[in-house]
Amino acid sequence: MGKEEVVEGSARIPERVLRRFTVAIFRKLGVTARNATIAADVLIAADLRGIGSHGVARLPRYVTGIKNGSMVPRAVGRIVKQTRATALLDGGNGLGQVVARQGMQIAIRKARQTAVGFVGVRNSNHFGIAGYYSMMALKAGMIGIASTNAAPLVVPTFGRTAVLGTNPISVAVPAGREEPFVLDMATSVVPRGTVEVYDRQGREMPHGWAVDTTGHSTTSSKAVLDALAKRLGGGLLPLGGEGEKFSGHKGYGLALLVDILCGALPGAATALDVYGDEEAANVGHFFGAIDVRAFRPLPAFKRDMDKLLRTLREAPKADGHERIYVHGEKSFAMERDRRPKGIPLGPKVVESLRKIGDEVKVPFRII
Amino acid sequence: MGKEEVVEGSARIPERVLRRFTVAIFRKLGVTARNATIAADVLIAADLRGIGSHGVARLPRYVTGIKNGSMVPRAVGRIVKQTRATALLDGGNGLGQVVARQGMQIAIRKARQTAVGFVGVRNSNHFGIAGYYSMMALKAGMIGIASTNAAPLVVPTFGRTAVLGTNPISVAVPAGREEPFVLDMATSVVPRGTVEVYDRQGREMPHGWAVDTTGHSTTSSKAVLDALAKRLGGGLLPLGGEGEKFSGHKGYGLALLVDILCGALPGAATALDVYGDEEAANVGHFFGAIDVRAFRPLPAFKRDMDKLLRTLREAPKADGHERIYVHGEKSFAMERDRRPKGIPLGPKVVESLRKIGDEVKVPFRII
Repeated sequence: MGKEEVVEGSARIPERVLRRFTVAIFRKLGVTARNATIAADVLIAADLRGIGSHGVARLPRYVTGIKNGSMVPRAVGRIVKQTRATALLDGGNGLGQVVARQGMQIAIRKARQTAVGFVGVRNSNHFGIAGYYSMMALKAGMIGIASTNAAPLVVPTFGRTAVLGTNPISVAVPAGREEPFVLDMATSVVPRGTVEVYDRQGREMPHGWAVDTTGHSTTSSKAVLDALAKRLGGGLLPLGGEGEKFSGHKGYGLALLVDILCGALPGAATALDVYGDEEAANVGHFFGAIDVRAFRPLPAFKRDMDKLLRTLREAPKADGHERIYVHGEKSFAMERDRRPKGIPLGPKVVESLRKIGDEVKVPFRII
Repeated sequence: MGKEEVVEGSARIPERVLRRFTVAIFRKLGVTARNATIAADVLIAADLRGIGSHGVARLPRYVTGIKNGSMVPRAVGRIVKQTRATALLDGGNGLGQVVARQGMQIAIRKARQTAVGFVGVRNSNHFGIAGYYSMMALKAGMIGIASTNAAPLVVPTFGRTAVLGTNPISVAVPAGREEPFVLDMATSVVPRGTVEVYDRQGREMPHGWAVDTTGHSTTSSKAVLDALAKRLGGGLLPLGGEGEKFSGHKGYGLALLVDILCGALPGAATALDVYGDEEAANVGHFFGAIDVRAFRPLPAFKRDMDKLLRTLREAPKADGHERIYVHGEKSFAMERDRRPKGIPLGPKVVESLRKIGDEVKVPFRII
């Protein structure tokens, strides 16, 4: 829900063109063929699902990360410790997508044998959209869980500096005739990208999204972004907003929980230490897979899921509204549109891709 | 966080007096000694931790439930299906506290053997505070997870009728010198009890807590409570509030996730069917235990937890605020105060206890 607005003057780029370009860029930077294919797949999946902030628009940051050595292009994860139901994976500072996909695969493999699999990951990097990994469990008839910590952007309740990341949580659950339930949410009210959009458009933000250096809600996106850039304080508010009046402490609690599961549990960085070291971000992830069949036959479960999701979609609507969505629905619709028609990219993103292409000598051609 | 206000004219009742009275009431209603002790312990724990809405103030509803046969006083749960890491428990319409404690015990037992244990429960009843069960994992050096679905009170984003419960999520995580992290949150902005408090005080609610029968936010607590009582529509808003502007769809997603894990997965009732049948509420629960040692040595983990929790508490404060709390902190402080000094009960609660006592011939004496 709350998907991106398509920027004015956007060009539709066919998925395969964008994929081929992205793989080629990674290959030129020394990423193995296998790793490049995985990383590109996760980025393109974000663009297809309407989460452009986590798609190819982010490619420049990966290029920088590989060039400055904080992302190791050939690395794959290594299991440090395991039980029948769990594993601790060291990502070796590899590409977050590569390490995360491996982590989720291990969780699913464990769950095939033991009904439940949980994997903690340390020494990783930004992994893209959490929903990519949770959804890997769906084909196996499992509930998938994916989470990551991230660079500090979120201010705890009653604080005035960012201590936690936007720490997303994703859970995917298979259904029958209905599309799967795919919750994929940052634990902040809005992502930083939304504040940036308001800034570019020169619009005032609503109160309750972000705080300035006093720790109180502001409508000035410029003040928030400036203060964050200069590390003066301020930042995004956790889900529930400022203070306790609308239960901002709950969003703060969820963000902290993610930092515990992704940071403290696998021994990755937490809070201010995530990206605290120039050499290595030491981002941590947490993945889980739960086999539905350990509880009920899959067809019976899927029937109940269909019934539940339909109950929500068919419930009476608020005045002025025509639809109640279930989570994942908007992204699946976006994907159905974009697969055949291509992915709309704004002129700025196209320009940045062209520039990267020039740098590493991979021409970016819009076909 | 956001704990109850102590009502004017409250009397402090010693914990042991309240506990003895509660056990005696349950015993008179045919509850076994063991079950009565457990149910009383969960209710008293809520009062000690400052969640009075889920404490002995709720005793009349349990009395009604047992008297009308929807709660079976002697029932204990029965494992219907299990693997090394999971179990499906049928609660036999027993007291929610008894069944839930059993479910969490099984999860912890599984986790001792398999590092991870997850238990789904069906055919249960209201279980009290979720934090009671998640905290059971702490002594075992584990992360505890507890959740339940509940009677419909929460309106999905863009809807105008309550479809989901306030569906709480609790996660408890051990720390070292610091107190444990205990998140225990309803997935609505506020609980029904808060709307009731505003109604009693004749105060206007802030916009963003609840909607009237049009599906839009209202400040009239009376309108919300009346419409709910008459099943005309309206209800509480999910965490994040109305619409998508402040990400109300995320709170809605969390509430739906809880209904999936507690309802669809164990085959309990979901959405409108929870308490849909007069004979049996068919409430469902979901419990989990994750052994920290499967990932890291417990002392190292606890050290990192201490560091993380301190980082948050010591972070710079917003203007006008002196403390940043971590989750559970307020409840632990409340408990330290109430254990020696007694539990403050408002005159209305005292009156209701006296009335129940009279009915079943157990005198309620304030010592």
